[in-house]
Amino acid sequence: MTALNEQATGRLTDEEIFLAHEGGKLGVSVRASLADSRALSIAYTPGVARVSTAIARDAALARDYTWTGRLVAVVSDGTAVLGLGDIGPRASLPVMEGKAALFKAFGGLDSIPIVLDTTDVDEIVETLVRLRPSFGAVNLEDVSSPRCFELEARLIEALDCPVMHDDQHGTAIVVLAALRGATTVLSRDPGSLRVVVSGAGAAGVACARILIAAGITDVTVLDSRGIVHAGRGDLNPIKAALAEETNPAGRTGGLDEALNGADVFIGVSSAQVPEESLKLMAPDGIVFALSNPDPEVHPEVAARHAAVVATGRSDFPNQINNVLAFPGVFAGALNAGARRITERMKLAAAEAIASVAAEELAVDRIVPSALDPRVAPAVADAVARAAE
Amino acid sequence: MTALNEQATGRLTDEEIFLAHEGGKLGVSVRASLADSRALSIAYTPGVARVSTAIARDAALARDYTWTGRLVAVVSDGTAVLGLGDIGPRASLPVMEGKAALFKAFGGLDSIPIVLDTTDVDEIVETLVRLRPSFGAVNLEDVSSPRCFELEARLIEALDCPVMHDDQHGTAIVVLAALRGATTVLSRDPGSLRVVVSGAGAAGVACARILIAAGITDVTVLDSRGIVHAGRGDLNPIKAALAEETNPAGRTGGLDEALNGADVFIGVSSAQVPEESLKLMAPDGIVFALSNPDPEVHPEVAARHAAVVATGRSDFPNQINNVLAFPGVFAGALNAGARRITERMKLAAAEAIASVAAEELAVDRIVPSALDPRVAPAVADAVARAAE
Repeated sequence: MTALNEQATGRLTDEEIFLAHEGGKLGVSVRASLADSRALSIAYTPGVARVSTAIARDAALARDYTWTGRLVAVVSDGTAVLGLGDIGPRASLPVMEGKAALFKAFGGLDSIPIVLDTTDVDEIVETLVRLRPSFGAVNLEDVSSPRCFELEARLIEALDCPVMHDDQHGTAIVVLAALRGATTVLSRDPGSLRVVVSGAGAAGVACARILIAAGITDVTVLDSRGIVHAGRGDLNPIKAALAEETNPAGRTGGLDEALNGADVFIGVSSAQVPEESLKLMAPDGIVFALSNPDPEVHPEVAARHAAVVATGRSDFPNQINNVLAFPGVFAGALNAGARRITERMKLAAAEAIASVAAEELAVDRIVPSALDPRVAPAVADAVARAAE
Repeated sequence: MTALNEQATGRLTDEEIFLAHEGGKLGVSVRASLADSRALSIAYTPGVARVSTAIARDAALARDYTWTGRLVAVVSDGTAVLGLGDIGPRASLPVMEGKAALFKAFGGLDSIPIVLDTTDVDEIVETLVRLRPSFGAVNLEDVSSPRCFELEARLIEALDCPVMHDDQHGTAIVVLAALRGATTVLSRDPGSLRVVVSGAGAAGVACARILIAAGITDVTVLDSRGIVHAGRGDLNPIKAALAEETNPAGRTGGLDEALNGADVFIGVSSAQVPEESLKLMAPDGIVFALSNPDPEVHPEVAARHAAVVATGRSDFPNQINNVLAFPGVFAGALNAGARRITERMKLAAAEAIASVAAEELAVDRIVPSALDPRVAPAVADAVARAAE
């Protein structure tokens, strides 16, 4: 296995990157005509007063007669931006603009970056409650773990609209879809798999949970200190809960103890995996090395010991990319007028992604391309149906 | 004088108004290419990390490499929306979307409505401080008086970016420009005018102040209880300050006492002016009846007793419309990288509007048309120069 299109992505220069970012990546467009005095009188005063009066009488009309019916706030405090860490809200903006651009390009949704100059969970919740009438849904992004779990849970309670922390659930949905693809192509029974998830941050916790929700019973999670198990005294509340939900065999130890006989390795931390450790896995295995830009194990190395290999990179086959999930998930939730993004909707999203992949399924095509235009509409349909 | 184009604006139907508002009036557009894998790698990961890292090192780069360099937050709490009053943030959204559309169409600026589910001044300031990295300037809109004065002053202190309450200063700038046009066409000396401002809310206070700043010494303000003067015991702090700054002759009484011998009447409340009262004005007078949609006095009636008449309506000559000011004011301030919108910049904006009008000045053309594309660039240039 070699890099597919290193030429396409391998040699980005600073010059072209900064040029592409000049003036930012987003703009506001005007859908209403303002071409003449009459059009102005419709879109602004005095005509607009009729619409405002109608919404004052029935708040639900805001969804139909303002942009909030399809508007996602991409919210970050800049504490866990890409692999760069806590670089602050202002420096996170280019990432949030990129995310908003993906929402538009793939989901047809409008989206605005809201970056917050506070990292206090109470203050972030309070701020978004005050902003609530300004948008229709919240995509939480690049918020550090374990704060992200409490923040998402509190926002879901506080806001009567779809809220999803994409670093958790976007990743988890695509991982589940990819695992469906891999098990189908290998004719393996997902329910019988022994899965190891390396990483107990946002993505690791959500991956473990969605796999369990999808019927995979033997999931073991590793953090930087080894296997997460109930006997450890150093677990934060999230990991303590995870210890209850995972690791039914009560394994202890580190990477090698976890990998010994495992069928699936899912890497969502930057912790490197030595080739010697991979050799401990059961035959016909599956390796998702999703750390970006440096996978936990190089896919060429992994391919020596696993039947299916995926990464987070666009320059190798089987890219596990959140963009397969989030545009369709939010579009489906908003189209359905859903107030929550439920576990059922997430599972439906994974099924929809897997269904698109099923049409050309192969060892090196277990998920659709990140650019596949069929995915978001399929996900949106499935999510909207699951919302009902 | 009759309605110029009643046909154009006089018969808006609910059907066409609601149709024009379906799905809202704004959208997000993507300026960066996302057409292929390489473009994605530039606009999103991994390329975007270079831009985020650069901003983390030098926050000032956010102005150049994100949309915040030209992004205006149109902020309202929905407490004083058009003539509708306190209809709340959600119902104010169509107005804020319209405002954002005008920013784009006339100033070339991107703009997002931020409507807040709180009317507490402390909370609004706190919220915008937390949101500060998300935008480049704040246009306060439709906030009730007298809260609007404290809120604007506190935001100017708290935020290191241009902040302007348009209902105050947008109106004041255009009124000053129109008064320049009127005095020029009548060959009158502005400094010698005796001016009456009816209304001591957002627009009235700002109009009085900009006229004084422009060198007009005899300004008298009326509120619903009559002339604002230092002897009244019922004045809030804003009006008490106004009593010090205005009414040098120490007039007392009501509308008739104020209008007796006055040269200029500026109506920015809905208080009706009887024709008998207008007769008390000095000859060769100027009447701006700006209440919308019902002027303080019908322009045909006013024209019997004044040499120049203006309204806020598009269907009569001399429309005094804020859109002549705010797009250029914010564009100029953002282009100049200004941290404040100063009195000098506001006066420069009024001069620029008057300069455009000067080219075709007439009794029924004291200000340019609201749709005149020359105005915003001229205002932006003048404001940017005044910012230096």
